Amino acid sequence: MSPPRAPFQGPVCPTPYGDTDRVQLGHGSGGKMSAALLRDHFLPRFENPVLSELGDAAVVGVDRGELAISTDTFVVSPLEFPGGNIGALAVHGTVNDLAMMGAEPLFLSAGFILEEGLPFEVLDRVVGAMSSAAVEAGVTVVTGDTKVVERGSADGMFINTTGIGLVSPAFRPGPGKAVPGDVVIASGPIGCHGIAIMAVREGLEFEVEIESDTAALHPLVSGLRESVGEAVHVLRDPTRGGVASALNEVALASRVGIEMKEGSLVIPGPVLAACEMLGLDPLYVANEGVLVALVSPDRAGDALASLRSHPLGEEAAIIGHAVEGHPGMVVMRTGIGGNRVVDMLPGDQLPRIC
Amino acid sequence: MSPPRAPFQGPVCPTPYGDTDRVQLGHGSGGKMSAALLRDHFLPRFENPVLSELGDAAVVGVDRGELAISTDTFVVSPLEFPGGNIGALAVHGTVNDLAMMGAEPLFLSAGFILEEGLPFEVLDRVVGAMSSAAVEAGVTVVTGDTKVVERGSADGMFINTTGIGLVSPAFRPGPGKAVPGDVVIASGPIGCHGIAIMAVREGLEFEVEIESDTAALHPLVSGLRESVGEAVHVLRDPTRGGVASALNEVALASRVGIEMKEGSLVIPGPVLAACEMLGLDPLYVANEGVLVALVSPDRAGDALASLRSHPLGEEAAIIGHAVEGHPGMVVMRTGIGGNRVVDMLPGDQLPRIC
Repeated sequence: MSPPRAPFQGPVCPTPYGDTDRVQLGHGSGGKMSAALLRDHFLPRFENPVLSELGDAAVVGVDRGELAISTDTFVVSPLEFPGGNIGALAVHGTVNDLAMMGAEPLFLSAGFILEEGLPFEVLDRVVGAMSSAAVEAGVTVVTGDTKVVERGSADGMFINTTGIGLVSPAFRPGPGKAVPGDVVIASGPIGCHGIAIMAVREGLEFEVEIESDTAALHPLVSGLRESVGEAVHVLRDPTRGGVASALNEVALASRVGIEMKEGSLVIPGPVLAACEMLGLDPLYVANEGVLVALVSPDRAGDALASLRSHPLGEEAAIIGHAVEGHPGMVVMRTGIGGNRVVDMLPGDQLPRIC
Repeated sequence: MSPPRAPFQGPVCPTPYGDTDRVQLGHGSGGKMSAALLRDHFLPRFENPVLSELGDAAVVGVDRGELAISTDTFVVSPLEFPGGNIGALAVHGTVNDLAMMGAEPLFLSAGFILEEGLPFEVLDRVVGAMSSAAVEAGVTVVTGDTKVVERGSADGMFINTTGIGLVSPAFRPGPGKAVPGDVVIASGPIGCHGIAIMAVREGLEFEVEIESDTAALHPLVSGLRESVGEAVHVLRDPTRGGVASALNEVALASRVGIEMKEGSLVIPGPVLAACEMLGLDPLYVANEGVLVALVSPDRAGDALASLRSHPLGEEAAIIGHAVEGHPGMVVMRTGIGGNRVVDMLPGDQLPRIC
């Protein structure tokens, strides 16, 4: 409960609303300042007929079928980082969650929490990046909401996106559908997103700047669907908790063991160097532009070829396979013939990474 | 940018994770603590087959047709207040936004931002209220997401809900569909939500406690659809900014004038007393269980009867009508024959009311 405050003292001074370069509490009021925020900072970037209706909800047409719905809230700190910002991430993250269910992403909602005092130039860059990411990913932002909280009650801005996609009954990968023998493929080099964030936070400089890999992955998924279809049993994007956590979830959900081959993962040199410096294991570092697929062994070659034919998947590689032994457990087979358990972390390696 | 912090020092102590009564950063990690949070605090309350899949997205079936999508983020302070809490509000708010488009609410997503240190007993009450509100409203929470931010980076908790509802082509009210002559009906007494929140914040005590009116309004809408159908031109729930802002939006979107009749709005005595004490105009105070309908004059009586047949609408009343004059403007016709303009407020009367 907040301490008592002075009661409302009468009409609010209508203009110039104080500091015009920054978000103010009144921008979340549902009044004229809210309307101006929408008109000046959101609508020009997301213009489409559905959103422009400005009703309490957006109305979209769908064919009879199954829809995938995914929600994700983004609290990444800092808001802007090499390779992207919270706005691009908020589009990619939700589009990718839909893609991992085999769905074709169609629509996004966007819910903003803005901290009083957020510079409009930051907001505009973030919303601009969201808009570009949505156009590039072929999804439409059809409805949105903005709240403003007092200085100190949030950290700059948080964004929720909820996505709706169309599911095809013939292509329904799921975390519980892996079977022993499945080949585990990673679509690209790992660790870039988490290390890009950490480098900014820690003020680290490298010879080559590490950029977040944030990207929409559904073009890779479309390729897999067209080339090998139902031979794709599982798709996951290894974000929070990295490849290790994603594979543990698959092992648990599918009741299979997973064996990874040491040295098979592509880890960029600068990521490896940064991980050593920071005491991080790249297996647990978040990615925002990588998928992990578990595919029937007879179609693994085709799946790999399909991934490699796309710029995002050029460095796709087989990183392991599913086994009958040790169900629910991921092990790394080391070069000298030993095994080590790749467990889930209990808590945070890197907080507020997405 | 955060200041540099100590690098990760090695494995995190697995149990007891420190203070077990409160949310910790690790609960947002995507690791074991996240899994425990989900298992212990969310899934038992929202159990349904779609959510239990725990995929990256939920998959639901729909008939061919049109869907309404609405998103809303809830930042109300305090989290708990007479008549409800942020969880109930997060269900009702989004369900009502869908209902105002004439849609039948079907599915909700829920995205949580938790502040490190939030007591689990508060979280559990909030999630419990969400669950009850969803059951009562007949909607299913099909997917969710939880993020945890450091102490001081949020204010207890914020919740985004995004709702999906089915739209019938024969019943499509919208803010731009009012025509001159339409009768304006309010479904119940106004001002209760905003004043309930303010009373807690200001530490006010009244003889009769003012409770938030937070409620799902789609049963009222179903009644209107069945009784008068397309004669309902506009439906709005006057939340932030109150009845005054909602009617201004309608006047602008429909390019009609709106004339309100002084004394026609039902305002509970304690609300009126509190507004006088706080210097607030009840026309601008938020409601969470009231709708405003603009209805063809020939069906207004039936619409009123339909609303009054439901407990939520017992005190429904005609509060004005749409006119050709002064398009985009709402005026109050006073008892002594004068008019005063009921403008939108520029900014906040009451911040963080929902």
